[in-house]
Amino acid sequence: MAESKSKSKQLHLTAFMRPVSLHTGAWRYPGAYADANFNLAHLKTFIRKLEEGKFDAFFMADHLAVLNMPVEALKRSHTVTSFEPFTLLSALSQVTERIGLAATASTTYDEPYHIARRFASLDHLSGGRAAWNIVTTGNPESAKNFGRDEHVEHADRYRRAREFYDVVTGLWDSFADDAFVRDRDSGVFFDPEKLHVLNHQGPDLKVKGPLNIARPVQGWPVIVQAGQSEPGRQLAAETAEVVFCSPRDRAAARDLYADIKGRARAAGRDPDHLKILPAALVIVADSVDQAKARRLQLDSLVHYDSAIASLSVALGADASGFDPDGPLPVDDIPETNASKTSQQGVIKLAQDEGLTVRQLAQRFGGYSGLAFVGTPESIADEMATWLAEDAADGFTVVFPFVPQGLDDVIDRLVPELQRRGIFRRDYEGTTLREHLGLPRPKNQFFA
Amino acid sequence: MAESKSKSKQLHLTAFMRPVSLHTGAWRYPGAYADANFNLAHLKTFIRKLEEGKFDAFFMADHLAVLNMPVEALKRSHTVTSFEPFTLLSALSQVTERIGLAATASTTYDEPYHIARRFASLDHLSGGRAAWNIVTTGNPESAKNFGRDEHVEHADRYRRAREFYDVVTGLWDSFADDAFVRDRDSGVFFDPEKLHVLNHQGPDLKVKGPLNIARPVQGWPVIVQAGQSEPGRQLAAETAEVVFCSPRDRAAARDLYADIKGRARAAGRDPDHLKILPAALVIVADSVDQAKARRLQLDSLVHYDSAIASLSVALGADASGFDPDGPLPVDDIPETNASKTSQQGVIKLAQDEGLTVRQLAQRFGGYSGLAFVGTPESIADEMATWLAEDAADGFTVVFPFVPQGLDDVIDRLVPELQRRGIFRRDYEGTTLREHLGLPRPKNQFFA
Repeated sequence: MAESKSKSKQLHLTAFMRPVSLHTGAWRYPGAYADANFNLAHLKTFIRKLEEGKFDAFFMADHLAVLNMPVEALKRSHTVTSFEPFTLLSALSQVTERIGLAATASTTYDEPYHIARRFASLDHLSGGRAAWNIVTTGNPESAKNFGRDEHVEHADRYRRAREFYDVVTGLWDSFADDAFVRDRDSGVFFDPEKLHVLNHQGPDLKVKGPLNIARPVQGWPVIVQAGQSEPGRQLAAETAEVVFCSPRDRAAARDLYADIKGRARAAGRDPDHLKILPAALVIVADSVDQAKARRLQLDSLVHYDSAIASLSVALGADASGFDPDGPLPVDDIPETNASKTSQQGVIKLAQDEGLTVRQLAQRFGGYSGLAFVGTPESIADEMATWLAEDAADGFTVVFPFVPQGLDDVIDRLVPELQRRGIFRRDYEGTTLREHLGLPRPKNQFFA
Repeated sequence: MAESKSKSKQLHLTAFMRPVSLHTGAWRYPGAYADANFNLAHLKTFIRKLEEGKFDAFFMADHLAVLNMPVEALKRSHTVTSFEPFTLLSALSQVTERIGLAATASTTYDEPYHIARRFASLDHLSGGRAAWNIVTTGNPESAKNFGRDEHVEHADRYRRAREFYDVVTGLWDSFADDAFVRDRDSGVFFDPEKLHVLNHQGPDLKVKGPLNIARPVQGWPVIVQAGQSEPGRQLAAETAEVVFCSPRDRAAARDLYADIKGRARAAGRDPDHLKILPAALVIVADSVDQAKARRLQLDSLVHYDSAIASLSVALGADASGFDPDGPLPVDDIPETNASKTSQQGVIKLAQDEGLTVRQLAQRFGGYSGLAFVGTPESIADEMATWLAEDAADGFTVVFPFVPQGLDDVIDRLVPELQRRGIFRRDYEGTTLREHLGLPRPKNQFFA
């Protein structure tokens, strides 16, 4: 068990909130708010609760299309109607004071002038709490909503993303921090010597500038990224301050952590200025058995027809002919041309937890990523180990259902983490950069 | 004077709030908040005051660039740093309950999927108070922030705008109003029979859909437009529900009103479902002389060097050689190849108000559009006449400075309008459509 000490490495916790749960059965769980993902009153309650729990940030993933799944699965999805990130986070900025507000925005299907401006505006409206989760948009359906027949190629997306980042950060630096003098007597509102015109011309983008908004409170909003591909890791190492990732287990997380921090060091950055926060489903209960039972109950709410398709993908083999209520027929699974690691992981999971084909399918159709399922003490033990072993700097917490699954984390797990001295008892600063221990970037054009 | 009667035609009032004053001297006026245009605390106070005054809406113009003016003028502009409309209005939606929230968004430099989604989100967040001011973006500097060397041609902009409107309204209708059943027992979240895929393919736009958000509370957010060109009037007649315009005087306003309402009728629309709200600077004081003195004082805060350039434009002739403190030397003004109507208007104004060249220049450099300058009674008389003569359905009120110029309108003019029975004493509905007396559009794809 990790010991409490005053200067120990600290956990950072962000809440994955768009959708309010990644688990596809979440909205059907007994007592859960079925409409929570699209109910402003509920979302206000959640963010206030997260702020009470001193979370670093409220994180919104995003999609520029209705998800491309078969209608039989789609009609069961609570994410099909969601708020747009900038509008929701701006609204939520007015009912909170400290918690960070992370919005996802695409570099493939938007313009850097718009993105720079909206984040600057959100940062000012929130007193320095904005973060930009840079994505290149993986969903090919999005292309069709933006005039294209085909998705933009991966390499092209990442090349544009890197240039897009340069343009956006350049636009944020359009004005020196002290440009606005507002001298009534002389009538001078700002000092034109403190205005920089970007005049960017690159392979993918041409943007003149300046931005028509003052430099953000944080200098630059916090930069978040989620890519785990080779170009994704490199982009993160060069530019990200928070990395959102989905490692399979602690060993994989340690490797990823070392790789990205090493790349950051190689790029001339301080690796402490890049926080790695794996996504983790967290289910807190009075006993480990009770928590596991809740998870099985939650999984059981995933419709079998869509679940079995997810299992087939994970196995790299058609699972639809298996007996749903029998064990996984390991000897009948054909060899796969897809990921052998994935297939072996499925088999191990089925055996370790003694799951039927149905339960296994529902696990993959619900949420099959990293999960902490147990008591406040057991989960705090695990999180402390991840932190101590440099597998993570904290977590992006995925809730199993709301409000109860979120309340359990705030009311039960957070106090345990605080007791151990690995999570703050109160915010020490007012900006998200301060919560994360990140420096405020200097303006690249002005001293 | 207009008489109070129970069923008289009613005024609609929207507040022009981006910038907080169009008058370039506003931020220097004694007692004015110099930073009001970019101060959230002040903006919250203003919108609450406007709601107390039962205004229909808070209206944000917008620019996708720092305005293209010489640096000597630019450095004096309080608009150079402004909030982005969607973020600001979403924040303000949480500190108000009834007032409408009108955002400007460009059809030339943005994508219909983004625009449809943000307005739908704002409409849901605000309980049905969003309006979209459709602009094609007149400022050529904007082009340079979006990868172009040259601005898109006027006719091309309007053709795209018309198609853009069809796509956005089509996307808003992606889901039937009753699509979301959220049946926990069966696990069906929405009825796929109530989802429409747009599959739009037109000359300028290709957008598949559906939108990933429920149909807006108002069906469609209210459509606003400001174009006065031939294609602008036609677009307004076909699509707008509120027209923002800048007629020179009441006679010109009557002509414009008759023209646009006639075009709407010809397009098969009910002309009552299109409200024409000219912009008007309103300065309220204890006497007409005091109000005029305030206006002169306000004008005097416009810097002469930038003001004289505005006068030269209005005259169609170089005015920089004239004696600033003498009368306008009418016999020395050369004939103009530009607008003779504009030149004659300048000469008439100089003679009517006995203005020096400096004062005249400062009028054109400050705000030279329609103005109501007088007592609550005299302004109410004028507004009632405009209303009765079908020159307007109300006004887009431009404030001379804030907070005093806004407080005077709410505390002094609004009660006078209410006393006469031509302006509401309270909101009768909860949505902006209800304030404006506009019907909720039927979903074009579902009964």
